[in-house]
Amino acid sequence: MDAMTSLTPDLGIKTLHEGYANGASPARMIDAVYARIEEVGDPGIFITLRDKADVVAEAAALPAFDPVAYPLWGIPFASKDNIDVAGLPTTAACPAFAYDATEDAFVIARLRAAGALVIGKTNLDQFATGLVGVRSPYDIPRNAIDPDIVPGGSSSGSAVAVAQGIVTFALGTDTAGSGRVPAALNNIVGIKPTLGLLSASGMVPACRTLDTISIFATGIADGWQALTVASGHDPADSYSRPLPAPALDMPPVPVIGVPDAASREFFGDTVQEAAFAAALDRLAALGAQIVEVDLAPFYAVAEMLYSGAWVAERMAAIEELMRTNPDAVHPVTRQIVGAADDLSAADAFRGIYRLMDLKRATEPTLNRIDMMSVPTIPTFYSRADLDADPIGPNSRLGTYTNFVNLLDMCGLAVPTAPRSDGRPGSVTLLAPAGKDGLLASWAAAIETDAAISPGAGLSRPAPLVTDATSPGPEEMLVAAVG
Amino acid sequence: MDAMTSLTPDLGIKTLHEGYANGASPARMIDAVYARIEEVGDPGIFITLRDKADVVAEAAALPAFDPVAYPLWGIPFASKDNIDVAGLPTTAACPAFAYDATEDAFVIARLRAAGALVIGKTNLDQFATGLVGVRSPYDIPRNAIDPDIVPGGSSSGSAVAVAQGIVTFALGTDTAGSGRVPAALNNIVGIKPTLGLLSASGMVPACRTLDTISIFATGIADGWQALTVASGHDPADSYSRPLPAPALDMPPVPVIGVPDAASREFFGDTVQEAAFAAALDRLAALGAQIVEVDLAPFYAVAEMLYSGAWVAERMAAIEELMRTNPDAVHPVTRQIVGAADDLSAADAFRGIYRLMDLKRATEPTLNRIDMMSVPTIPTFYSRADLDADPIGPNSRLGTYTNFVNLLDMCGLAVPTAPRSDGRPGSVTLLAPAGKDGLLASWAAAIETDAAISPGAGLSRPAPLVTDATSPGPEEMLVAAVG
Repeated sequence: MDAMTSLTPDLGIKTLHEGYANGASPARMIDAVYARIEEVGDPGIFITLRDKADVVAEAAALPAFDPVAYPLWGIPFASKDNIDVAGLPTTAACPAFAYDATEDAFVIARLRAAGALVIGKTNLDQFATGLVGVRSPYDIPRNAIDPDIVPGGSSSGSAVAVAQGIVTFALGTDTAGSGRVPAALNNIVGIKPTLGLLSASGMVPACRTLDTISIFATGIADGWQALTVASGHDPADSYSRPLPAPALDMPPVPVIGVPDAASREFFGDTVQEAAFAAALDRLAALGAQIVEVDLAPFYAVAEMLYSGAWVAERMAAIEELMRTNPDAVHPVTRQIVGAADDLSAADAFRGIYRLMDLKRATEPTLNRIDMMSVPTIPTFYSRADLDADPIGPNSRLGTYTNFVNLLDMCGLAVPTAPRSDGRPGSVTLLAPAGKDGLLASWAAAIETDAAISPGAGLSRPAPLVTDATSPGPEEMLVAAVG
Repeated sequence: MDAMTSLTPDLGIKTLHEGYANGASPARMIDAVYARIEEVGDPGIFITLRDKADVVAEAAALPAFDPVAYPLWGIPFASKDNIDVAGLPTTAACPAFAYDATEDAFVIARLRAAGALVIGKTNLDQFATGLVGVRSPYDIPRNAIDPDIVPGGSSSGSAVAVAQGIVTFALGTDTAGSGRVPAALNNIVGIKPTLGLLSASGMVPACRTLDTISIFATGIADGWQALTVASGHDPADSYSRPLPAPALDMPPVPVIGVPDAASREFFGDTVQEAAFAAALDRLAALGAQIVEVDLAPFYAVAEMLYSGAWVAERMAAIEELMRTNPDAVHPVTRQIVGAADDLSAADAFRGIYRLMDLKRATEPTLNRIDMMSVPTIPTFYSRADLDADPIGPNSRLGTYTNFVNLLDMCGLAVPTAPRSDGRPGSVTLLAPAGKDGLLASWAAAIETDAAISPGAGLSRPAPLVTDATSPGPEEMLVAAVG
């Protein structure tokens, strides 16, 4: 397949880099990207789309193609609009909050330094508060699979941009599931890194103690490549951690905890329930040892995210706007964040104590498994469902995501075989902080096994190349030009 | 010296164990302890003193003397009255708050299991809020050195009990300096362990994220022995950390950071200033490499403790009492804790963010030194000073202690040569979490060098036996009975 001429271009890093090695120019890729944007015709995806000429000029100014020195050379990506890109406004989907970013966020700068080309800034649930993607004053992005279904959020535009084949990867952010739920709803991969692996410098905070930038891609290999480039310690972000560089890690027989019968919650969606059971069968077939675990303490943690003190972090992030211009805030967001007014500092500390107690309660479970596998979402909700009840369906979408960041776990949502009704399947792998490489390795096995066409019928992603079989730089160059 | 008959008994573990090995009975030791209590005649030290007969009976029920199996066999100690001892009330120096403890605190249980004998529960600044020791509805303990001076707090009774030769060691607690300031004011050792090394199960919290039980002793060896017995992971306390057992550790040439000229603050007390300078000269003479450091970011942390959000933790601990029976709370304590009412949950999180930023700012300093040495207290205050201003002198006493727990550092206050006016000298060694053994090792060198008579003219403590020169169990037994 020619990556440069198809209406739905194959934007996989491997494909694009093979093209560049054969003399293709990034300008042709950029043409294809903007043609695809036009073809998709969804005004809700981007809040700010860069002028094509600017991107072409930036591509032309790249050093010579060298995929070792510049592992993302000529790779188009998008960023959620709560992350700064120099020269573009950052809105966080709130025009009254918007400011012109003068510097790239730390992560953006690293991606661009590796040759990646930012195409635009994507829509989101305002201030990254929501899992549905409809809480924005801009046009709502259309779900890439089924426009009746919500696109998912809060990283709605980023997920849809990837699922529609507009960019190779996109940055989201994830506090309560915003990097995973839209991945499931749009049939793509969502990497929710360990907190502090990706710097939050230049990101509008939601809950600063729980936030991370996240990565959407059609496949594990591309997402992992973006993650390894984007990660790195940032002394300017106090929540950036001096973690080792993420490394792939595949245990021979991983022990995977899965929700026991009492812990499975699909809100009546028996199709989703069956799809999850089938996905677990595949895990076992792939050689995992499956262990049923009780999610009760995990759910107790999840309840704290919106009913507990952490909503006050959202208030801390936007308090000036909430006090001086509350009407500028989306009414649903205003209602949610406003709940912080009932919380005292003593309440905050009581919440922190309770979280410590609940963390302790989850330890015996986490100590006996390598990772967990949960449904990414319990069911699907339509835009009509959200019109009828803007909060309930949103909360239910977070069933399997809300506890993760509070427990300092990393997560990775990966497509599985479609449900019996054709809707996308997805499981999320979860592990304690620092185990990102374990999740990616095993998710790659799931991806290869599922063999789906991701997003809106895009090309199957290139397989993840694990370190053991990875060619050295010279071999890669030979392969690319051979 | 005969430990059992002197009016001021030598209650050192080594001395007592030599006596027991030679056939002395704990009952004689207990007689000496109660005689000493009577001789001291300070009704402010203990809130609850056990009946002597109960202690004698407990001692009689101990297994046969075996200092290896029971390293605290027959060793008398006291506990601050915010730590539970089964069968005794826990008051936290607030009669309206008092309850009858039905179980020993985790740490008390460990000490007793090692053969230690609890004598009573000691006075404190109510709810461990204060560094002065005068914020109690009970009689105020008299400073063991100079009754005009405040005893120091909040662990006032425990420090005085040790300094008066009533017990071998005593438990305090330390949130802002309560385990160090009274040590300096009473000329004894105060060990402020790494947070989470000693379980807080059965302790009345002050600021649960910052609290630790602490240990007073006349010398490092006895304090270290108590610490190693008391420490241990407690799954029931979410803030207990699975740390390695504390181990002595003496670098050949420790790099010790000391406050630079601009960071030294003695509030006009030039005698204290000179004493600290002399103490630093001794550190250099002992072989340390002295590095001057700027304490500005450390002081910025300290300011957050009472002016920032953490006062809300104190409110969280006693909110029910503050709401239902505020008059039962000491007026100064009520004023301090009541400030939490002006703090929202968003304020709490902003405080947490600022602390993270400040922690980051201290890292370059901490990364280039092994430990810090600071004055334990900047100056001395009299009870009259506190009558005139109940808050200012208290705050100033915390100059070199308030930042420590917020920065997750361990600390150890050790007597140095007396000041030129005869008042006790003291420095505190500080290091990052987990370095307790480093502090004890180096403090032992300071102790040996200073060669003072601790407390109110007590026997010089036995030197700390470092692992390298420590006799094995059999040798110990031979030495004890030989």
